[in-house]
Amino acid sequence: MTGLLTQEQLEDALREVGATRYHHLHPFQLRLQSGACSRGEVEAWALNRYLYQACIPQKDAIILARMDEAPLRREWRQRIIDHDGEREGEGGIAKWLKLTDDLGLDRETVMSGRLALPATKFAVNAYLSFVRDRSLLEAIASSLTELFSPMVIATRVSGMLANYDYVTKDTLAYFTARPVQAKRDSDFALDYVKTHARTPEQQRAVIGALEFKCSMLWAMLDALEHAYLYAKPWPDAFQASERGERQAAE
Amino acid sequence: MTGLLTQEQLEDALREVGATRYHHLHPFQLRLQSGACSRGEVEAWALNRYLYQACIPQKDAIILARMDEAPLRREWRQRIIDHDGEREGEGGIAKWLKLTDDLGLDRETVMSGRLALPATKFAVNAYLSFVRDRSLLEAIASSLTELFSPMVIATRVSGMLANYDYVTKDTLAYFTARPVQAKRDSDFALDYVKTHARTPEQQRAVIGALEFKCSMLWAMLDALEHAYLYAKPWPDAFQASERGERQAAE
Repeated sequence: MTGLLTQEQLEDALREVGATRYHHLHPFQLRLQSGACSRGEVEAWALNRYLYQACIPQKDAIILARMDEAPLRREWRQRIIDHDGEREGEGGIAKWLKLTDDLGLDRETVMSGRLALPATKFAVNAYLSFVRDRSLLEAIASSLTELFSPMVIATRVSGMLANYDYVTKDTLAYFTARPVQAKRDSDFALDYVKTHARTPEQQRAVIGALEFKCSMLWAMLDALEHAYLYAKPWPDAFQASERGERQAAE
Repeated sequence: MTGLLTQEQLEDALREVGATRYHHLHPFQLRLQSGACSRGEVEAWALNRYLYQACIPQKDAIILARMDEAPLRREWRQRIIDHDGEREGEGGIAKWLKLTDDLGLDRETVMSGRLALPATKFAVNAYLSFVRDRSLLEAIASSLTELFSPMVIATRVSGMLANYDYVTKDTLAYFTARPVQAKRDSDFALDYVKTHARTPEQQRAVIGALEFKCSMLWAMLDALEHAYLYAKPWPDAFQASERGERQAAE
């Protein structure tokens, strides 16, 4: 890839990144939706992913702060509202805490992040660094994993409902609103990068940004799979027993 | 731990962090020194750890930039000289490249970092963020893993020499100078944190900084073990064949 792509070719290249690198292909994701995860693994997934959910409004605020134009900021700020909500108890983060609540995890412990795996913290930190340190174009492009999330959400929700009796539709309320929000957000971001990546270098940077974001989501699942399936979690992290029973988390 | 520790108790607490959390206990480290690693795994280890080696002078420059006192800076700057050398081809980073050269890895590829695992990059990035964003006391304390490195270096060098016929003393030249440098540096840093952590909060922060650093080194080995032993590496990362033969790295 050395020359300038058409907008359609750029979109194809971005969709190819998703088809080959998005975490719908990750073994832990497949375990989660097939019912193969122990209760402890589901809890570890929800507890660790909370840190990712919680960073989203901060990530979007960093991006917002880098936008020079009010129309662009008016568009982008909705993402912050979606995750933080209009009032206490609303928004994506609150809905994720509904999931961890229903799994029996202590809310203060989850929110503190102190039982999360180190690798989860490093991945989330890398995402915040990326949107701060790279170009605005790359920061916006890194959000394009939302292009692929509707497909994984449907499979994950139906799989988890079918396979874990402690998971109800209400538990997974977070995912109800996300496909519509993700489609709206990714349509906008895709249009933005297609019209603003005007050189081969910018187009490569945009594709690289999406690869980075996919690698970050993948690394979070790698860390979960390693710690809870193949090896042992870091001693200060959440301990899930071998039989899948939840131990005292503190 | 709620009250103020004596300096000796603080040192004991720090040494306890090393005894329980330093990567001399990591299964991949034990494989590496016992001869159980395939050639591909040894290469992946050297290639990934290059990014850690290469970040050290930048990490120390960030710390140096935060020091207000010339005597402290004069002490700390030696670390940068040790890793960057007095001239081209000298210093710790050049010696690490001697290791990757001898393993047959392309130097430009290693230095670019493009075949490193995403989790390696995130861990290194987390270290740079830590020394920039936390207190100077915590930044200095995070270097205290050097207290424990002399013991692991001796075991690693003798184990690798005994078990891998493609590894010579010359290949491992990096490690020859490190125990003396590490002892000098960690003696200084230990004395600094013992005299400057004067409240229970500061003492807890110092211990937490060392735990963070241990978790970062541990996470790098977790990622290697997961990618090359249990699962598959990220598609854009270094691919080691199952038979331990090195494939084309590009």
